[in-house]
Amino acid sequence: MDYRTWRHAFKLDPAKDISDEALEQLAESGTDGMIIGGTDNITLEGVLDLLARLRRYAVPLALEVSDVDAVTFGFDYYFIPTVLNSTDVKWMNGIHLDALKEFGHMMKWEEVATEGYCIMNPECKAAQLTGATEVPTKEDVVGYARMAEHLFKLPIFYLEYSGTYGDPKLVSAAASVLDETRLVYGGGIRTAAQAAEMASIAHTVVIGNVIYDDLKKALETVDAVKAVTSPK
Amino acid sequence: MDYRTWRHAFKLDPAKDISDEALEQLAESGTDGMIIGGTDNITLEGVLDLLARLRRYAVPLALEVSDVDAVTFGFDYYFIPTVLNSTDVKWMNGIHLDALKEFGHMMKWEEVATEGYCIMNPECKAAQLTGATEVPTKEDVVGYARMAEHLFKLPIFYLEYSGTYGDPKLVSAAASVLDETRLVYGGGIRTAAQAAEMASIAHTVVIGNVIYDDLKKALETVDAVKAVTSPK
Repeated sequence: MDYRTWRHAFKLDPAKDISDEALEQLAESGTDGMIIGGTDNITLEGVLDLLARLRRYAVPLALEVSDVDAVTFGFDYYFIPTVLNSTDVKWMNGIHLDALKEFGHMMKWEEVATEGYCIMNPECKAAQLTGATEVPTKEDVVGYARMAEHLFKLPIFYLEYSGTYGDPKLVSAAASVLDETRLVYGGGIRTAAQAAEMASIAHTVVIGNVIYDDLKKALETVDAVKAVTSPK
Repeated sequence: MDYRTWRHAFKLDPAKDISDEALEQLAESGTDGMIIGGTDNITLEGVLDLLARLRRYAVPLALEVSDVDAVTFGFDYYFIPTVLNSTDVKWMNGIHLDALKEFGHMMKWEEVATEGYCIMNPECKAAQLTGATEVPTKEDVVGYARMAEHLFKLPIFYLEYSGTYGDPKLVSAAASVLDETRLVYGGGIRTAAQAAEMASIAHTVVIGNVIYDDLKKALETVDAVKAVTSPK
């Protein structure tokens, strides 16, 4: 299933432990895709472990690349974040250049999608790492959304609230200026109701931490999202 | 004439003086387009002056935006540089965000083209300004070209040698990895032979400084480029 049609995705952190039973429930939940990605302590071993344990299921798998040393063949998609509100070129295109110099000649570009990240929670690890430490205003978010769609023609604009639940008005503002680029919402969804609310605004809703805290709640988000009509 | 078919363009610096006679000769030379752009002392008055004096001719006009305060309606195209080898996010997407916040709601996006710049001459003003002070290697250039085409899907990859004549082998290396993105070459072309050489490798050749130093030589580059078959 093409990531451009995903409504719901689970994001698994290769640095965290998870049981085979939980993985099976997630993979067979009806979710549209599973994203493997995290910020800290991402190792090739961790990525390969999840890949091996998930590949038996039919669900599409995407690797969100945060560390070039933890990249492996075998995924359906490779999501490449570029942090639009980083203060350091390293996170905008620096590590990307290193990766392109090493792997550029062997990439299957149809499997690659660049994600224009806008990090909304300055307290989160990703914000601290990339220097995205100012809270973007609504005007900033709309500007970054237009940048993603029109200047860089990115397939994905990713509003990352990481651990906090976002402001639906602000997410709507981003949605209102996107036509071609997909709006992905991630962060702080802990209930079916929250998942449904964001699914009514964003094209794709990503469920992360609650997987590790309350698997049942996490699984309930699948049907909640599927019950909502996708925005245009 | 669509900029995606330009083989030859003149670049005029709004901070430099030029006579009406010279402008007429350039505009009616058979060039495919005129780009208004520079690094230092770009003012709205300077831009409007060139616009007013050139708009009577049929040649397409593009404004290469370096300063948001010097942007005006009336051009056919707005080229937006993003400096891929800058060390400061300001030149990658920072001033872009400011511009999008101010003008994003009124842009005609079909007139806008983002140029992925790779600045090859660390001594030039643009390099000093943007912190692009390391000389990119061949591997860097190939990496940036792939970044422009695949990660950011930019319509233009611009190798800017600014005042120095480039290495055809290195320009060829960039060309060899581009399929959708146009390769634009600029810098140091002072003769018809040099223009022809770069036109055999790059899609578009930009002629700048020699306009102000030796107009006759500048005009000779038009036929020289047109005599060369465009690379794929």
